[in-house]
Amino acid sequence: MPHPIVQEHAEIGLIGLGTMGRNLALNIAENGYRIAVFNRTAQRTDQFVAKAGDLAERLVPSRTIEEFVASIKPPRAIILMVPAGEAVDAQIQVLRPLLDPEDLIIDAGNANYHDTNRRAATALSGGPHFMGIGVSGGEQGARFGPSIMAGGDRSAFARVQPLLEAISAKFENVPCAAWLGEAGAGHLVKTVHNGIEYADMQMIAEVYGIMRDGLKLDNSAVADVFDGWNQGVLQSYLIEISAEVSRTRDPDTGRPMLDVILDRAGQKGTGRWTAIEALMLGTPAGTIEAAVGARGMSARLEERKAGEAVFGSAPRPIAQGLLGPEVLEPALLAGKILCYAQGFDLISAAARQYGWAMPVPEIARVWRAGCIIRSALLNDMASALEEQPGRNLILAPFFADTLRRSEDGLRKTVAMATLHGLPVPALSAALSYFDIMRTGRSTANIIQGQRDFFGAHGFERTDMPGDSFHGPWAIA
Amino acid sequence: MPHPIVQEHAEIGLIGLGTMGRNLALNIAENGYRIAVFNRTAQRTDQFVAKAGDLAERLVPSRTIEEFVASIKPPRAIILMVPAGEAVDAQIQVLRPLLDPEDLIIDAGNANYHDTNRRAATALSGGPHFMGIGVSGGEQGARFGPSIMAGGDRSAFARVQPLLEAISAKFENVPCAAWLGEAGAGHLVKTVHNGIEYADMQMIAEVYGIMRDGLKLDNSAVADVFDGWNQGVLQSYLIEISAEVSRTRDPDTGRPMLDVILDRAGQKGTGRWTAIEALMLGTPAGTIEAAVGARGMSARLEERKAGEAVFGSAPRPIAQGLLGPEVLEPALLAGKILCYAQGFDLISAAARQYGWAMPVPEIARVWRAGCIIRSALLNDMASALEEQPGRNLILAPFFADTLRRSEDGLRKTVAMATLHGLPVPALSAALSYFDIMRTGRSTANIIQGQRDFFGAHGFERTDMPGDSFHGPWAIA
Repeated sequence: MPHPIVQEHAEIGLIGLGTMGRNLALNIAENGYRIAVFNRTAQRTDQFVAKAGDLAERLVPSRTIEEFVASIKPPRAIILMVPAGEAVDAQIQVLRPLLDPEDLIIDAGNANYHDTNRRAATALSGGPHFMGIGVSGGEQGARFGPSIMAGGDRSAFARVQPLLEAISAKFENVPCAAWLGEAGAGHLVKTVHNGIEYADMQMIAEVYGIMRDGLKLDNSAVADVFDGWNQGVLQSYLIEISAEVSRTRDPDTGRPMLDVILDRAGQKGTGRWTAIEALMLGTPAGTIEAAVGARGMSARLEERKAGEAVFGSAPRPIAQGLLGPEVLEPALLAGKILCYAQGFDLISAAARQYGWAMPVPEIARVWRAGCIIRSALLNDMASALEEQPGRNLILAPFFADTLRRSEDGLRKTVAMATLHGLPVPALSAALSYFDIMRTGRSTANIIQGQRDFFGAHGFERTDMPGDSFHGPWAIA
Repeated sequence: MPHPIVQEHAEIGLIGLGTMGRNLALNIAENGYRIAVFNRTAQRTDQFVAKAGDLAERLVPSRTIEEFVASIKPPRAIILMVPAGEAVDAQIQVLRPLLDPEDLIIDAGNANYHDTNRRAATALSGGPHFMGIGVSGGEQGARFGPSIMAGGDRSAFARVQPLLEAISAKFENVPCAAWLGEAGAGHLVKTVHNGIEYADMQMIAEVYGIMRDGLKLDNSAVADVFDGWNQGVLQSYLIEISAEVSRTRDPDTGRPMLDVILDRAGQKGTGRWTAIEALMLGTPAGTIEAAVGARGMSARLEERKAGEAVFGSAPRPIAQGLLGPEVLEPALLAGKILCYAQGFDLISAAARQYGWAMPVPEIARVWRAGCIIRSALLNDMASALEEQPGRNLILAPFFADTLRRSEDGLRKTVAMATLHGLPVPALSAALSYFDIMRTGRSTANIIQGQRDFFGAHGFERTDMPGDSFHGPWAIA
């Protein structure tokens, strides 16, 4: 049966009309583009168009993939919003024979960047072009302006740049969409974004725990503290919603939402990916690792209860006057800077590993709005990274000054929490990172001594050049 | 050219006469076995036999691989002691056509256990049999009795069990060699052993740092403390050699060795593998992760010096009387128990993941002697794991009691170190693990609230069943 002849009039196509796909398609349509849409189950496409209101006139629905492809102006650009993994490979397989070498496939899902590297390499042999873009901001971001982290073919990016900039979030009128490097660079940046998000959320949870169990503040007092912080240097989306979440009551029971939400956290894996990448690339990311670990431990509810039965619950109240929100604020600020330093360091290491020309300051810029970790601080980070892209963020004068002012708060918070059984794994990992990265003479000399003792691994010396000295150990 | 006819008289063969291979071959010969030996460069084989003294009569050297194979009694057992990775695959490729299906290849190198899984699976289709065994104890261990962690084909293990037990270390006359599970289980256990080794060493380095920079003890005083600990509950090889390393002086300069050894630690990757496995299996291993991270940071000597120039060195002396070795001893004890709990938990998770019948108490038993982490405590761990193999070690009555007694020391040590800029990443990760795993009501409720707020991920409730509730959030 011949396909119906469809006018080639859509400027872009999108496959996959789940929540994110629908919202992204509406965002594109609202920005004046005609967009071809396709979903495996045609019913969902019909429902989507039916509910699109005024925007329906810019939607070009298709019932078959051939019709869908034919409805897009060549050279075509097609966004995939299908589940990460095999579904993406399957969709590419279906599309390839229908597309021209100059066409462009854009995977906008949460791909593992190694998969994107592989798909980008395949695309190089005969096309179509391929890009992997990270899209952050959840449902609302997709609809009204996400942060867009693009990776892959740079010339192909130029074709879709105006569209991606149009639909993206804006920070002081600057679009939060940019090309961030070759192949899987965009998805790598999205992964690290999520790793930082895990750490940001964990550090907030840690100071929440100090306020709840240590300072014995009720939920509305906690909300007030978060609200206050959101007027200051910690101003950020995650602090803002922490206030909202703390203040909200359950309409059914009238109880504070925080009291009815079970403390067993889920995860989809991107935080874990970040920690694994850091280990593979050999860069320190203790704060992110601690956050991933804490989320994993939260899932072990029964084991934690068994532990409490044996040892008693760890948290104990902190006596009046020993610690207050005015100390927790700089603690969180310092923790945040130290965690972001780890994240940017990891991105730079990946750029070196893969030979990608990643514009690191640009990454801080696209994170300034639209994404989950958006914050006032990211603008300062962009400036600091601009000054000297390869430098550790903590060494940039602005952040060095900020750390000098906030260090005592972090130190005091971790020490107090430690003494009172209030777990602060991410904050203390951040402080350890800081203390190690500012200590010229660390304690690794004894580790090198041990390694040489039992394995003759050799060591360097402080007093002469050479890379494999051995000690005069009396072998036991 | 026809191969020379060689009498089939060796009871086992070994390929790869590096330090470890030579020592293992001598160990086997000394235990009364005739062993065929082969090395890619024949010169090394000749030198080895020439230097073997009385043991030379039990060595059967060969100049070609065919001759080597022919010199071993069938069904043959051949130990590979070649560098982990491609060299192992290349060696197997060379051997396979020369061997019978009933023969057995034993990879005794430091393989990544995923490689061992793959090689074991290949061996199942047509043989020869394959085992991966972890060998710990360094050069001395290989020569005089290592800890042997065997994995793979259980029936094949039975054939070499007497030999492996004979050459292994003994703990109160019990051999430290055992079958620990199918396929890559032996190499997994060796990997986790090394991860724990990293953590043990890092925690020792942390208390060393507190003594050196916080308490201002000189190296010989530090050595005395380690010596004292080695008479008590911390008795272990690593504490013993820490004392040796701290006491030893450089014969050239007369200075303490610890002062001339540069604090830039190397690593061969097994600690990193352990941390990656923990992340992949979703088990908490913060103490090991922190140790891997600290080793990585130690390598960044120039960056640390730049940090010191900007911020000043972190460590500050601790005022007299605030902290002493009597507090550090229980701190290290608690940290060690918590770290081992993570390690055994990780092993159990791998056993579940791969469906391996891993005898977990047996693992603690083979670690009691011969290996780098050997210690008095491992005997108690074997007993505790025997009582109830699936239970978290910290919940076993013996260790629960020990933790109750040592907890304050750990808490005080971490808090004091934190206040004085003495980095304790591994000890504080251990304490965080303890505090989280004994807290029935954690702070992950706010994380679940945030996740539902920005991503509609849903949460469970404390007051009713069901797994995906949503909050009445006022979306900003």
